[in-house]
Amino acid sequence: MQLISNARAFGGEQRVYRHRSSSTGTDMDVAVFLPEEALRGELCPTLFYLSGLTCTWENVTVKGGAQRPAADHGMIFIAPDTSPRGEGVADDEAYDLGQGAGFYVNATQEPWAAHFRMEDYVARELPKLLAESLPVDADAIGVTGHSMGGHGALTLAMRHPDVFRSLSAFAPITNPLDCPWGHKALGAYLGEDRAKWAEHDACELARSRGFRGDILIDQGQADGFLEEQLKPWAFDAACREAGIDLTLRLLGGYDHSYYFISTFMEDHVAWHAQRLFG
Amino acid sequence: MQLISNARAFGGEQRVYRHRSSSTGTDMDVAVFLPEEALRGELCPTLFYLSGLTCTWENVTVKGGAQRPAADHGMIFIAPDTSPRGEGVADDEAYDLGQGAGFYVNATQEPWAAHFRMEDYVARELPKLLAESLPVDADAIGVTGHSMGGHGALTLAMRHPDVFRSLSAFAPITNPLDCPWGHKALGAYLGEDRAKWAEHDACELARSRGFRGDILIDQGQADGFLEEQLKPWAFDAACREAGIDLTLRLLGGYDHSYYFISTFMEDHVAWHAQRLFG
Repeated sequence: MQLISNARAFGGEQRVYRHRSSSTGTDMDVAVFLPEEALRGELCPTLFYLSGLTCTWENVTVKGGAQRPAADHGMIFIAPDTSPRGEGVADDEAYDLGQGAGFYVNATQEPWAAHFRMEDYVARELPKLLAESLPVDADAIGVTGHSMGGHGALTLAMRHPDVFRSLSAFAPITNPLDCPWGHKALGAYLGEDRAKWAEHDACELARSRGFRGDILIDQGQADGFLEEQLKPWAFDAACREAGIDLTLRLLGGYDHSYYFISTFMEDHVAWHAQRLFG
Repeated sequence: MQLISNARAFGGEQRVYRHRSSSTGTDMDVAVFLPEEALRGELCPTLFYLSGLTCTWENVTVKGGAQRPAADHGMIFIAPDTSPRGEGVADDEAYDLGQGAGFYVNATQEPWAAHFRMEDYVARELPKLLAESLPVDADAIGVTGHSMGGHGALTLAMRHPDVFRSLSAFAPITNPLDCPWGHKALGAYLGEDRAKWAEHDACELARSRGFRGDILIDQGQADGFLEEQLKPWAFDAACREAGIDLTLRLLGGYDHSYYFISTFMEDHVAWHAQRLFG
């Protein structure tokens, strides 16, 4: 891993690394906040934050306000990119397909299959790489995310319970089988067989695989994507059906922006800290 | 004032307004965070944050982390732009002159004199306008700022003690009479008479006018601009000479970025709250 930048923050260090990914076959950038404890070499619980459409590592790193609570709890905070990028990587003119829109799946369809392997990257390669290179406690990794990244958090945690021990999400896409973003992306990446989509639909996974822990979801009521794209009530129903312990907070007045995320980031970091420590 | 955007954050609202400025003769955008108390109509202590070179209202608003402590203390947080902008407004190709680099003075030299009247705008027009339009307590306004904006905070507070009651700064330019940024900007805006520059030099103002309150300055030791441009020890010496109660924290490892600012924003908001309430 090549260190691209480093700045002290909240007694720790906010770093950005670049590394060659065997999953995507490209260079990938990833932001890593190390609290003071990690700088001293202590193994630390670690929270992955998966970002939404159009984002890179940078959005949550500069706007999310995670460093303060991560420093308070002694947690490492990881922000991966949302897709492979660069020359030779397929793309689409739309913001919701291709670069910046990996949807945290391994694409099987052309032109995406060569590089768009974001499930392998986030759930297999990156946790291993980080645990080898940094004081990431591989037995204490949690995952959260926003919008498309909330979909990523929910689906990857249910598909990889050996990797992700705690789970929350901000305004996640909960039911891609039943929303335009999901139809478009999963159709493009996985083909038209809806049985394949169901393996990456949080509502379906809640019923088919469940999750052994409890889940926190925060959702703004003034979020313009709420009714058409996000549908938290679908996931709420699936969790009740599956006996999953879900805390769903529908928050009056909040929208889909980082003003919303930064307001509740402290609660999410605390949620994971309570479940990953000890 | 025309409301450009509005998002709920930390129980309050993060707004951006556009208004016609009689000082600059242009439209100006200004970011306003209103805590819950202000939304209920209660008069609130208010902190102005003056930004650095190249910045607009947006940098601190999305990266500074001020909303959480402002909400905790019940304070309004104001982020003005750093210069007039738009067609017909003079500019320079360099980042440190013209648009984005107003230096919080009233320019007397061409081509700047027509619009670059940032002292009038920030210290006279904006406090009055905000107190007329919003629950800003005009008797409880403090000022802080970063780099060029730290220079603005220090000089405007000492030049307008009737407006600004409390004062702090992040990595301020303290001695523009003795640094390249200061020579370039003050020479361009005020002409070659150095006696005019001295009226906008924090070190000179400390000796000539003083400040009735105490002052907090935070400065990162790994700041690449420290020795050539910022020179906090010059201001430290001036304050001792003038009997001004300065707290200067030289912080190991921190740089000039918003990672530094966001780390210590909470302390600055608390500093002003302690001095403006009651």
